[in-house]
Amino acid sequence: MNILAIGAHPDDIEFGCGGALLRYSRRGDNVYLLVLTSGGYGADPFIRIKEQEDSAKFLGAKGLFWGGFKDTELVDNRELILKIEEVVRKTKPEIVFLNYLDDIHQDHRASAQAGVSATRYIKEVLFYEVPTTFNFEPDIFVDIKDVLEDKLTLLKLHASQVDKTRVEGLTILESATACATFRGYQGRVKYAEGFKALRILRDI
Amino acid sequence: MNILAIGAHPDDIEFGCGGALLRYSRRGDNVYLLVLTSGGYGADPFIRIKEQEDSAKFLGAKGLFWGGFKDTELVDNRELILKIEEVVRKTKPEIVFLNYLDDIHQDHRASAQAGVSATRYIKEVLFYEVPTTFNFEPDIFVDIKDVLEDKLTLLKLHASQVDKTRVEGLTILESATACATFRGYQGRVKYAEGFKALRILRDI
Amino acid sequence: MNILAIGAHPDDIEFGCGGALLRYSRRGDNVYLLVLTSGGYGADPFIRIKEQEDSAKFLGAKGLFWGGFKDTELVDNRELILKIEEVVRKTKPEIVFLNYLDDIHQDHRASAQAGVSATRYIKEVLFYEVPTTFNFEPDIFVDIKDVLEDKLTLLKLHASQVDKTRVEGLTILESATACATFRGYQGRVKYAEGFKALRILRDI
Amino acid sequence: MNILAIGAHPDDIEFGCGGALLRYSRRGDNVYLLVLTSGGYGADPFIRIKEQEDSAKFLGAKGLFWGGFKDTELVDNRELILKIEEVVRKTKPEIVFLNYLDDIHQDHRASAQAGVSATRYIKEVLFYEVPTTFNFEPDIFVDIKDVLEDKLTLLKLHASQVDKTRVEGLTILESATACATFRGYQGRVKYAEGFKALRILRDI
Amino acid sequence: MNILAIGAHPDDIEFGCGGALLRYSRRGDNVYLLVLTSGGYGADPFIRIKEQEDSAKFLGAKGLFWGGFKDTELVDNRELILKIEEVVRKTKPEIVFLNYLDDIHQDHRASAQAGVSATRYIKEVLFYEVPTTFNFEPDIFVDIKDVLEDKLTLLKLHASQVDKTRVEGLTILESATACATFRGYQGRVKYAEGFKALRILRDI
Amino acid sequence: MNILAIGAHPDDIEFGCGGALLRYSRRGDNVYLLVLTSGGYGADPFIRIKEQEDSAKFLGAKGLFWGGFKDTELVDNRELILKIEEVVRKTKPEIVFLNYLDDIHQDHRASAQAGVSATRYIKEVLFYEVPTTFNFEPDIFVDIKDVLEDKLTLLKLHASQVDKTRVEGLTILESATACATFRGYQGRVKYAEGFKALRILRDI
Repeated sequence: MNILAIGAHPDDIEFGCGGALLRYSRRGDNVYLLVLTSGGYGADPFIRIKEQEDSAKFLGAKGLFWGGFKDTELVDNRELILKIEEVVRKTKPEIVFLNYLDDIHQDHRASAQAGVSATRYIKEVLFYEVPTTFNFEPDIFVDIKDVLEDKLTLLKLHASQVDKTRVEGLTILESATACATFRGYQGRVKYAEGFKALRILRDI
Repeated sequence: MNILAIGAHPDDIEFGCGGALLRYSRRGDNVYLLVLTSGGYGADPFIRIKEQEDSAKFLGAKGLFWGGFKDTELVDNRELILKIEEVVRKTKPEIVFLNYLDDIHQDHRASAQAGVSATRYIKEVLFYEVPTTFNFEPDIFVDIKDVLEDKLTLLKLHASQVDKTRVEGLTILESATACATFRGYQGRVKYAEGFKALRILRDI
Repeated sequence: MNILAIGAHPDDIEFGCGGALLRYSRRGDNVYLLVLTSGGYGADPFIRIKEQEDSAKFLGAKGLFWGGFKDTELVDNRELILKIEEVVRKTKPEIVFLNYLDDIHQDHRASAQAGVSATRYIKEVLFYEVPTTFNFEPDIFVDIKDVLEDKLTLLKLHASQVDKTRVEGLTILESATACATFRGYQGRVKYAEGFKALRILRDI
Repeated sequence: MNILAIGAHPDDIEFGCGGALLRYSRRGDNVYLLVLTSGGYGADPFIRIKEQEDSAKFLGAKGLFWGGFKDTELVDNRELILKIEEVVRKTKPEIVFLNYLDDIHQDHRASAQAGVSATRYIKEVLFYEVPTTFNFEPDIFVDIKDVLEDKLTLLKLHASQVDKTRVEGLTILESATACATFRGYQGRVKYAEGFKALRILRDI
Repeated sequence: MNILAIGAHPDDIEFGCGGALLRYSRRGDNVYLLVLTSGGYGADPFIRIKEQEDSAKFLGAKGLFWGGFKDTELVDNRELILKIEEVVRKTKPEIVFLNYLDDIHQDHRASAQAGVSATRYIKEVLFYEVPTTFNFEPDIFVDIKDVLEDKLTLLKLHASQVDKTRVEGLTILESATACATFRGYQGRVKYAEGFKALRILRDI
Repeated sequence: MNILAIGAHPDDIEFGCGGALLRYSRRGDNVYLLVLTSGGYGADPFIRIKEQEDSAKFLGAKGLFWGGFKDTELVDNRELILKIEEVVRKTKPEIVFLNYLDDIHQDHRASAQAGVSATRYIKEVLFYEVPTTFNFEPDIFVDIKDVLEDKLTLLKLHASQVDKTRVEGLTILESATACATFRGYQGRVKYAEGFKALRILRDI
């Protein structure tokens, strides 16, 4: 099965669905990443690109695509939709993971909104959360107990971002672990990632 | 895998998730039904019990449980919750199907609300729709193209209800087929049933 | 009474409110159409313009306006709002029909959003649905039993689009009929179109 | 046309839809009132019954029905639904007005919820607001400029309630006038009542 | 200032608003607790009553009231509302904390719903969350960094409940800490409790 | 304490939060205003700038900033976000007031959406309402009884706008007074402004 995860910036995907992707990747599914900007607003883009490449490798991703857009300047328009459609055509995913529509960061909103349009023929589209997401009530949970340590490794590979949490004394690793526990007890397991479905066509 | 579908009245389950149950049953899963009332308000309860038994048989259900409550008098209280918990304990389901919370019929509301409480340890709980449901925006779709005819047979087995649609000249068979097409194009297939998840713990 | 229906592409209006417009037109109201793009992404725009003209004629529309925007490139901005305002000024509608705000297609979102602003002085504004619409819970229903066949004729006149439903083996005619039945039983009639009001000032 | 307005207590109907009822009544429609309790918790029930009778007379109501339930003890159950159904059968309304589902007062919640079930065959059902209602976003507005003074008279006839607004120095008359202005500018007129439709089948 | 926290069972209050109450109590406000049932379904009620008393003492509560209702049998009715009103009259709170309306546990739903009615004259009413709460999107955050350890002590005093989390290997202490971190980064601090306001009248 | 109120046009701020700002200003807080356009679409911009300056002076504002954008052309993009961020950096507010996300006017939508992004590090962000706002359910209320007259003075200082209410015979002063009464009874006081929190970090 082919899976495509789309994020506005390096490390969005890892926080939101890194655990699920690790599980898909390790059971043999083909995981592809599309990162729409190189995150130049948060750190030197060369560093962030390298971090993303290392993370994609650790994740076992079959491919890493770059959108080539500018950090903080994503807009829900035809250009962005066409770029996502291009990668969708190349990777033929059965599942697509997207940023969520309600988010404090404008790039996340644009990425989500354009993703909804660009994935209109895909049978399963799931939204993930990052720390700036709001009004997010997941109903799909994935148990990530066995891969939590490796999910944290993915986040550590984005070394330039680990301490950029807007909160003094809080690392992204603590955020991700707390989020995993919080979504875990909602999903009735120790650690989980939570998703909200735009659309799932379930196989029986 | 064990699956439990719960309905307030005979034929709720068939309309809402009869197609999905047929697919589960035919691939070898154990399907159980819990019907909370015998629907005595809509027709002679003896007739409706017989219809439900025939339908359960055609569906290949492993068991049919009756709640023993009175039609139109279901209330979201401890007694109803305990009854559902009892059947949950007996059938050990991995998936439970429920009526939805927003519905014009008071029994559907009570059945849904009590079901939410009684299934608190179950890892997957899905709401289904019937014609009186409202504010229902499904995000989980099941392709029922191969079983649509048999779903209609299930509904025909509830012969006393086929013409009770509140709409002149409309049968439950036409309603179910239109609903399947409507949910189908939302789910990108010809015929589908749509569900809204209270909670899904997905296996990867 | 003057009525203005606005659609992002040729055939949006017909699917969403073609039945209601037929009824308004036939009782003597003046129906105007504003189609914002010529739908060049879905087929040759010359063909689609011709199809829309034929459909407007069959509908008995008093006027067909073109927005002149490019298919897939609609944006909720001043230019789009001004164009809609211009047609509102010309047609002085008492009722305006719009695409809905939650929709997979970016043009539908932009058309709806700009329409909300451009119709700020209009006393009745209703949203309609098309197959890509979501989170749409109509509370206004129009009985279209007597005009269903003619509504399907309107859709057939958009011949280039009849089979473009994203679903194998499904025509737009089947979609529209199923939708009419589905909304019908919600509205307690055999066939209906469903609308969601932004605002209705009711005459008593 | 027959119209039925249902309220949990004397004066609920007048605040929520007194203006619309005056307009219906004066153009010749048959307006019926069903008041579910005699409001004994707010004042002597004999006084409140008399006030309600006077108000019904001033309104030109064709009939005033009493539910006979106890103030503050309404419950959404079969007994309440059957009582409403009984009056629905007697009055054969084309429009029913109901309290709203989200309300601080338990009787309003029960009255609304039971009303949704009991009016399942009625083609138009509208929710109205009172001062304790919340999450109420009306989309149907009725111009009450010509009847505002008479609406205030209706409220004055409930003399025991005029100063019972929970707010020091505020009368129900000021509340109703402010509400009319507030809903008025939303509906683009000077004074309006706002309604939320459960379901409208519109005649064209 | 007087503050009243209401919970369906022993330890609901501590999980949901124990940190905020500790801060109120320590700056000199009068904190009162109302626990509606003795939680006899989760453990011996004598043990749970003792645990609650110890927790109230550690919290510095000025008073602990018991509702005397039976665990799992709370219903949103006049009896429950009157009990809450009685304690509201005795404690004259400026702030009331309540369970939330959407919750898997029926007692939490009833407690929240009845609380909404019983606190109708109170100027500030806040909903808190427990692990069974859903659709809860807080917009009010209280920094609990300085009292997190003591909040965990409150939960430890409910010793019979520490391991009853429905999740293998998860304690209520881990749940509460993860929740504090999750709500913390939403509120821009290290540890927070999140609340949703029914109504706040802010002093300036 | 520093407070920043942001509005798309002159007089948005005064209608939405003029009363609260008067109270903050008069107790000694530093109130800053950022008006994103000079409202040239509604009247001569020179007049509107002068009106806004007079209003800011009467309000006791410490500073009035202009965004320099064109009326009716605001877009939620990086340029707008950067402008707001610039004023946020200069004024270091503890509270920010914003237009609301659901609004008929495109500038209000853009202002709100961009404001959500630009205030991501601010601990309290509140949305206010104007007459074009919809789906606005405030849960934070500020008593403005003592400053209502002065709030109306603020609105009168925008003399070019007093009669521009879209409703014949209605002034902005009547709208504001009715809104204050309507939100007042929701907040249990005579006159109030209502707000919806994006995020409040409460000090205890």
